[in-house]
Amino acid sequence: MSDWLDAVKWDAQGLVPAIAQDAASGEIFMVAWMNREALEETARTGRGVYWSRSRNKLWRKGEESGHVQTVSEIRLDCDNDVVLLKIEQLGGIACHTGRRSCFFQKLDRDSQGGGHWVTTSPVLKNPDEIYRK
Amino acid sequence: MSDWLDAVKWDAQGLVPAIAQDAASGEIFMVAWMNREALEETARTGRGVYWSRSRNKLWRKGEESGHVQTVSEIRLDCDNDVVLLKIEQLGGIACHTGRRSCFFQKLDRDSQGGGHWVTTSPVLKNPDEIYRK
Repeated sequence: MSDWLDAVKWDAQGLVPAIAQDAASGEIFMVAWMNREALEETARTGRGVYWSRSRNKLWRKGEESGHVQTVSEIRLDCDNDVVLLKIEQLGGIACHTGRRSCFFQKLDRDSQGGGHWVTTSPVLKNPDEIYRK
Repeated sequence: MSDWLDAVKWDAQGLVPAIAQDAASGEIFMVAWMNREALEETARTGRGVYWSRSRNKLWRKGEESGHVQTVSEIRLDCDNDVVLLKIEQLGGIACHTGRRSCFFQKLDRDSQGGGHWVTTSPVLKNPDEIYRK
């Protein structure tokens, strides 16, 4: 019954990285971590569930923000150690900063070979309004 | 000059995961690891360079296979601990199995709540022909 979970190569902490990608556009929203329980619940319920390393507990994405993820497809890479979720992001905001995607920092190179990270996407909603303190 | 490299939150091994995504279609090809040197060289040369954890050395993608990655954009997530590369995959094969993408295993759920990983993509080139032994 759970052979498919046994096939995943969990790391020393029992985790694998999981990419959440827009099922429609291919845009990458975020990368978070999953333990076995998170992946099982994601597959069973069709909602994005992760393991919060900072809070050290199961994190049902959207439980505070309402920004739930509906998962239409679950993929695994060739080494069995990275999960890819095709999702629909409710509310259109995946990032805790209130932006659509977590990947809003783009490297801008200068002619001297240096560079800096430029913020490319607007804050759609104030995080204070997303998360009740 | 290298402030942008200092901004990255390298893990205890000095690594971060890096996603390689098709710049044109949004398809995710692979996830590999980068150390500081790999990211610096990727930005400087515009070629995908990673850190091979199995071989414990710098891995210039395509050095054996010819399947070089041309990098058009480098992004960093909100936690500064995941890199996203927008790339063009030369040869159209990113995976060491000879497939286009490493994410060729798709979860197929059955009615009893179990599931199994189904291979969805064909091998485009025999790995024995890609890598000289």
